[in-house]
Amino acid sequence: MFEIIVKTSNRVEAKNITDELERVVRGKDGSILHLYTPHTTCGLLINEDADPNVMKDILEALERIVPGNYPYKHLEGNAHAHIKSSMIGCSIMVPFSEGKLRLGTWQGIFLMEFDGPRERKVIGTLV
Amino acid sequence: MFEIIVKTSNRVEAKNITDELERVVRGKDGSILHLYTPHTTCGLLINEDADPNVMKDILEALERIVPGNYPYKHLEGNAHAHIKSSMIGCSIMVPFSEGKLRLGTWQGIFLMEFDGPRERKVIGTLV
Amino acid sequence: MFEIIVKTSNRVEAKNITDELERVVRGKDGSILHLYTPHTTCGLLINEDADPNVMKDILEALERIVPGNYPYKHLEGNAHAHIKSSMIGCSIMVPFSEGKLRLGTWQGIFLMEFDGPRERKVIGTLV
Repeated sequence: MFEIIVKTSNRVEAKNITDELERVVRGKDGSILHLYTPHTTCGLLINEDADPNVMKDILEALERIVPGNYPYKHLEGNAHAHIKSSMIGCSIMVPFSEGKLRLGTWQGIFLMEFDGPRERKVIGTLV
Repeated sequence: MFEIIVKTSNRVEAKNITDELERVVRGKDGSILHLYTPHTTCGLLINEDADPNVMKDILEALERIVPGNYPYKHLEGNAHAHIKSSMIGCSIMVPFSEGKLRLGTWQGIFLMEFDGPRERKVIGTLV
Repeated sequence: MFEIIVKTSNRVEAKNITDELERVVRGKDGSILHLYTPHTTCGLLINEDADPNVMKDILEALERIVPGNYPYKHLEGNAHAHIKSSMIGCSIMVPFSEGKLRLGTWQGIFLMEFDGPRERKVIGTLV
């Protein structure tokens, strides 16, 4: 089990953590990497790591689907972030072989910040 | 592999199963707990276990996004529950170490009932 | 680790891959099957494998939530497919015992194509 710290800089942000994760796990043993973020207002997502507009479109679509300015019952101002986090999920599994993550050509791993800026943890376990 | 039975009491409900799961796995060996619900109209979700309004906001947001009263093709009256279940997912993985679930401070584990009340199964596997 | 190729026939499609997966893993050792698709415009979903209208309702609901004809920033015409893929996810875990997938009675495994027709890979790992 290892842990990385991810500092986000904005209220809402798709922070690319692919390179850092690849560095941490390179050469290790295992056949799957489990990644987990122990928070309730961010998430972990695998999607396109080429055109940054894809992440902008994803974040904007989530905001249209779950608007920040709706009169939610939870009064801390971040109910929308809890809902987005629930839709994206806090846990992902990536195939791993010969000491390397087996991501697809266009895939990257992102910490999806929905209530930043904050310092977030990502816990990794090689199985 | 173990199994717990979760009885839900309402049509739609976020049933907190954290304490029961912690009791079942305490002291066991493993580095990740896989939880799985073998149904198609409920889901498993990790999110805030402090203010119950967060779960109310999540359930209400899902109902706005996927209204129960839309004219769906599936004629059993629970198409919306299948769709919500697909968005939330039926499977989660939680880090486990020293015989304990490594949930974040605010995280709890919920069975999300979208077509209750029913008796639901949750299958757990420690890896 | 094994790999199967899934050929999709339409722009948007829920392709049932349950039987093929069951054939591939039958009799093998392991307690969980991890399935992963290394693409960014499709997903993997477990839901009802009885009435095909359920998958139609799921695909149509996703299209209402994330319309294909919105003016997205990503200019390749498939931004909606990236967003749907992010909501459904590219990775699932299924309990496995005595050489068989432990799916629920009504559950099947589907490759959700959001930008086809294409040839897609699904990577499986028994843990």
